[in-house]
Amino acid sequence: MDINIRDAEIQDCPAIFELIKELALYEKAPHEVTVNYNHFVECGFGTNPVWFAIVAENNSTVIGVALYYIRYSTWKGSRMYLEDILVTEKFRGHGIGKALFERLLAICIEKKFSGMNWQVLNWNEPAINFYKKFKGVKFDDEWINCAINFQ
Amino acid sequence: MDINIRDAEIQDCPAIFELIKELALYEKAPHEVTVNYNHFVECGFGTNPVWFAIVAENNSTVIGVALYYIRYSTWKGSRMYLEDILVTEKFRGHGIGKALFERLLAICIEKKFSGMNWQVLNWNEPAINFYKKFKGVKFDDEWINCAINFQ
Repeated sequence: MDINIRDAEIQDCPAIFELIKELALYEKAPHEVTVNYNHFVECGFGTNPVWFAIVAENNSTVIGVALYYIRYSTWKGSRMYLEDILVTEKFRGHGIGKALFERLLAICIEKKFSGMNWQVLNWNEPAINFYKKFKGVKFDDEWINCAINFQ
Repeated sequence: MDINIRDAEIQDCPAIFELIKELALYEKAPHEVTVNYNHFVECGFGTNPVWFAIVAENNSTVIGVALYYIRYSTWKGSRMYLEDILVTEKFRGHGIGKALFERLLAICIEKKFSGMNWQVLNWNEPAINFYKKFKGVKFDDEWINCAINFQ
């Protein structure tokens, strides 16, 4: 299978947005995606980008994405926060997720981040098993997520 | 008690850094604070700030802090991520934490963030009870934190 991993460009936004919705559906929370598409594009490719992404493409079609932002840990300094990683369903099982994940680790090293953080749903066993394959991954279930939503 | 809440300035960094270490000690993880002080200052007040903070002061002494960064949620858009909030031990019980938290909510509205996220340790009952006092706070213990550390 011919797979190319590259930085996302503005014209990838519709495909990335579809993949985000596919992931939210899998995470049983499609109603939680209330972000506005134009705001999404502006936040990624406007004057002050807050998110960054890499995509996997097959024959010029985007079939996977990893989207991240920079977080600041008062314990560890600046880090990558991996917000979403997804390969569309029919392209799974070909190592595309692994290739995306490895590229993220390379970006962390290139940008001198102290590491990478992300979260996984405690019932998402395929994802947990996927992450376990990478050296040095630590899991911590001692924290509770808290949120206040205005919109 | 005379308390003033204001945006942090670069000269507050030593006091903020001490408060961060006090919080890490309370969270039973002082050894996890491996961030370099100069890097910390650079990340807050350098050319591309990644963290922001407000401080509480009493007689010109910083006795509390709330430190945040901007996150991007693919579900909710740009948001405040509250990394740390702490009032030094001997000043607790005077509503200073509440004043800091309310100021954060005001900043979210001012900056048009869709909301605020943070985490709390599942055994930190005083903090959980503190957050419960604010209208609309949601708790979600379904997620596991994952990390890879390079440093």
